[in-house]
Amino acid sequence: MHDVRIFGGSVVSVFTGEVFAADVLVTGEVISGVVPPGTGGEAACLIDATGRLIVPGFLDAHMHVESSFLTPAAFAWLTLPRGTTTVLADPHEIVNVAGRAAMRWMIEAGRSTPQTQLWGVPSCVPALAGFEHSGAHLNTADVDELLRWDGVRALAEVMDYRAVVSGDERMHSIIATAREQGAILDGHCPGLAGEELSRYMATGIDSDHTKNTPEVVVEKARLGMTVMLQEKCLEQEVVAALTSLPRLPPVCLVTDDLAADHIAAKGHLDHIARTAVAAGLPALDVLRALTWTPAQRLRLPDRGVVAPGKRADLVLLEGPLEDFAVDSVLAGGRLVAAGGRPTYEEPHPGAHPFAGSVHVPGLPDEEYTWRVDLPDGRHRFRALRVNPVDTYTEPTEIELDVTGGEVAWEGRTALCWVRNRHGRDHTACVPVTGMELGDGAVTTTYAHDSHNLVTLGTTRHSMRAAAAAVLDDDGGVAVARDGAATARLPLAVGGVMSTAPAADVADASRLVRDELGAWGWRHRNPFMSVSTLTLAVSPSVKITDLGLVDVLARDWTAQVLDCCH
Amino acid sequence: MHDVRIFGGSVVSVFTGEVFAADVLVTGEVISGVVPPGTGGEAACLIDATGRLIVPGFLDAHMHVESSFLTPAAFAWLTLPRGTTTVLADPHEIVNVAGRAAMRWMIEAGRSTPQTQLWGVPSCVPALAGFEHSGAHLNTADVDELLRWDGVRALAEVMDYRAVVSGDERMHSIIATAREQGAILDGHCPGLAGEELSRYMATGIDSDHTKNTPEVVVEKARLGMTVMLQEKCLEQEVVAALTSLPRLPPVCLVTDDLAADHIAAKGHLDHIARTAVAAGLPALDVLRALTWTPAQRLRLPDRGVVAPGKRADLVLLEGPLEDFAVDSVLAGGRLVAAGGRPTYEEPHPGAHPFAGSVHVPGLPDEEYTWRVDLPDGRHRFRALRVNPVDTYTEPTEIELDVTGGEVAWEGRTALCWVRNRHGRDHTACVPVTGMELGDGAVTTTYAHDSHNLVTLGTTRHSMRAAAAAVLDDDGGVAVARDGAATARLPLAVGGVMSTAPAADVADASRLVRDELGAWGWRHRNPFMSVSTLTLAVSPSVKITDLGLVDVLARDWTAQVLDCCH
Repeated sequence: MHDVRIFGGSVVSVFTGEVFAADVLVTGEVISGVVPPGTGGEAACLIDATGRLIVPGFLDAHMHVESSFLTPAAFAWLTLPRGTTTVLADPHEIVNVAGRAAMRWMIEAGRSTPQTQLWGVPSCVPALAGFEHSGAHLNTADVDELLRWDGVRALAEVMDYRAVVSGDERMHSIIATAREQGAILDGHCPGLAGEELSRYMATGIDSDHTKNTPEVVVEKARLGMTVMLQEKCLEQEVVAALTSLPRLPPVCLVTDDLAADHIAAKGHLDHIARTAVAAGLPALDVLRALTWTPAQRLRLPDRGVVAPGKRADLVLLEGPLEDFAVDSVLAGGRLVAAGGRPTYEEPHPGAHPFAGSVHVPGLPDEEYTWRVDLPDGRHRFRALRVNPVDTYTEPTEIELDVTGGEVAWEGRTALCWVRNRHGRDHTACVPVTGMELGDGAVTTTYAHDSHNLVTLGTTRHSMRAAAAAVLDDDGGVAVARDGAATARLPLAVGGVMSTAPAADVADASRLVRDELGAWGWRHRNPFMSVSTLTLAVSPSVKITDLGLVDVLARDWTAQVLDCCH
Repeated sequence: MHDVRIFGGSVVSVFTGEVFAADVLVTGEVISGVVPPGTGGEAACLIDATGRLIVPGFLDAHMHVESSFLTPAAFAWLTLPRGTTTVLADPHEIVNVAGRAAMRWMIEAGRSTPQTQLWGVPSCVPALAGFEHSGAHLNTADVDELLRWDGVRALAEVMDYRAVVSGDERMHSIIATAREQGAILDGHCPGLAGEELSRYMATGIDSDHTKNTPEVVVEKARLGMTVMLQEKCLEQEVVAALTSLPRLPPVCLVTDDLAADHIAAKGHLDHIARTAVAAGLPALDVLRALTWTPAQRLRLPDRGVVAPGKRADLVLLEGPLEDFAVDSVLAGGRLVAAGGRPTYEEPHPGAHPFAGSVHVPGLPDEEYTWRVDLPDGRHRFRALRVNPVDTYTEPTEIELDVTGGEVAWEGRTALCWVRNRHGRDHTACVPVTGMELGDGAVTTTYAHDSHNLVTLGTTRHSMRAAAAAVLDDDGGVAVARDGAATARLPLAVGGVMSTAPAADVADASRLVRDELGAWGWRHRNPFMSVSTLTLAVSPSVKITDLGLVDVLARDWTAQVLDCCH
């Protein structure tokens, strides 16, 4: 006697690419049969899949739960109806804030959900050791211990790739520890190629999920890296480069960082799948890149294919495969979503010990008044130029007048101001160009990866308004325009996650997104483009609480450029 | 400073299918670089690969070391120059003879070689519990314990598939134990399809390496089984069925059972690769089926691709890829073969505790005189019909005269006579048809899977001569013609392996093969076709020391068919 019979549908075989009429039987957490319709014995419960395609649950081999602004259980509740039944999550946002205790809390919080949440140990806490101050620090011994925790599978993205390439002892020691334990070793190395790529991979790292040119994507695949494609990587030229190879290499579709409103409106892995189809990847290869390939990558031989004996993580799709329109979802044999909606109540988030994590004693009067030790007159400063498509920042320069030690930046440029919020009195700032912005500002404590208090604005009064709102909310994101806060996304869990209902978090993040656009911050990914201004392992110039970093040189860069003339 | 630079060659990427000029750098056991020619730093030692293709070492996901008649170290020495750097071996031949001690001995014997030898726990010892007597018996607790031994990865081929399908408690308990431990679960289920296949797979078993029709091969792949193709499976129709699917499913090329002379003359996995190419599988897919796919199957993420950071198991090929002509081999960074020959001395086999394993107190006068409890006259008997291609045996019948309780079989049929050699006084016999044989016989103690003393012959005096030779050799294979032994392959290690030099074992096995042919036993695989007459889990009628088995019914079958008229 089986528990469930899913009848009337057709299974898509990720192994052969065939679509065939079959009933899927489920007993406990496992598929107990894939049989000709009507055969295979009795079942206690029936699920009508007439006209539906039955495919494996989707696996996300690289993502960060915090980027949704949701806690693990709420994230599962929001993404299971999208077909995501397994994730390997890297909790490096909250761990940079609150260290090992945060890692423990995330694992525990995820355990109660029907989604399989596996974890990677953040490899770079802080992201760029010596160049920024986050709230925590993981050394080799920490990584070694955390890798032994239940549910932990991987050393998460080794982002400080310049340190690896240059032979940095600390990074190599952390990687060696993980390798000895047989962990999955995930990479992050935008643009890395040739001899340097080889040196990076020689440590055992064998995946990358960053944006690269088609040539570099192919080079990485050729050398044996699993190619992970997130939304921004799914350009037609990249897909064309991969599909025109003699053989398609192992490809995983991943989400990396998706905010709650984006998930609610567009979807999760299902959205990435549609993006991949639109970019030219055949639907069958998209399906493999959601299922069998990531299952192999995550070393989960119990899933990724609709087969007797495998875990009953199943997705029922409406319409043709290429739509990836998720109707119903089973996770571990349990029906968790039907008709696109969860079948269970949204979980109440438990208590969390990460309130009061924004250690900033109010806003000094001097905040956002840029003072320099320079004589009166016009001076040349380093600036970051952003672009509307990706998170690449180009170094540029700007001439600004200095009077009485104060830079007259308002009306000339936007300014990004970073204040340490982990108990140190550090600030740094840099002009930001590339957008046409009105009077406004955004403040966020979700700012990769140290999650300091970052304010980007065109006027001091809007910057103060945005920052005040975030401090008032005990962390979060706020947009201010014309000196008043117009959108607030409170993130009281370590300044990066919310305990509000998912729908409220989605609404708030949508409002922040809209207000950013209204201000003039017109970017394909407004959240990431703001929050990665501080990610000093992502090319090419970034700002931390300690100053300006030349990412590729892995060194400080001067703020005042007068001397270079 | 790297240890080795392999220069002048071109790497074949199993990921992208591209062939590209690159130097491969090796440090210790690991590939420390795959770099543009001449770059990447200094190396202590150079290997000239000019004009060579560099591919990953080959992995054999299903095989039995004993089938080579060699001990593990000698097997490695003979097969490493063929490119086989990793095997998952199922020691069920010797374990059926000598139990857990034999398993321990095999693992230890393999450890000293540069070949990675991983092990599966034999799942069916004896092959068909209750229908035969071998020298050992593994129950659930044994399997549970053996799976925890170092180097053990899998539950080896679950051959008693009829027991699994029919819900047999013992087999299900053994499989459940292995599944709980997360072991690889390997199958053996010739012809199984439909609801029964689903029931078999629902236990978690997800591979098959037996011979099947193209339709069944595709059905198994469709349902999520890894398809393992050995030589006899590599028919053009099977390959065509696979390559015409929307997507090629995961395929591993495996050797299963190859004798020493076959390996010496034709090759090991390299030979299977050429067979696959000849059958129509594109060379790039053949390469993947030798490397990346079995590495994934064996859950060895450290190999199967020429990539920085992976284990330096490397094969240098001469000529075009489709020739799979192995020139040099590195295993774990060590050059183990060059110019097609091993670079190290053949290992001296250590002592072994498996001498004197053929417990037969001489040959009684009555041996090979077939006595029955039937009245004088002509009677109809069950016979096995063999074919010259595979090991399938068809039930047939033969009329023979009985006089004074003795069957007059000489001159009318060949007879297969099984004598228990594990201390029990059991014999059984059956007529064998399908070959035109002269006066001769073959005796073997290498007889799947109980390895009893099996003699197949057309005359009593040749049968006695062959059997006497084998008993004299303390186990092995011998052919006799016209009443005298003409070929002997002594196998004193449990009656299934030899400690003689590999070349001598190859010579002796070739002589046995030739003499079998000269006698009239013209079969594509003479060793397997003789030694599987007793394999009562392989369709459709077989003989054990206890009698005749109807394999598909998993029941005894009558020897005398008179009643059925």
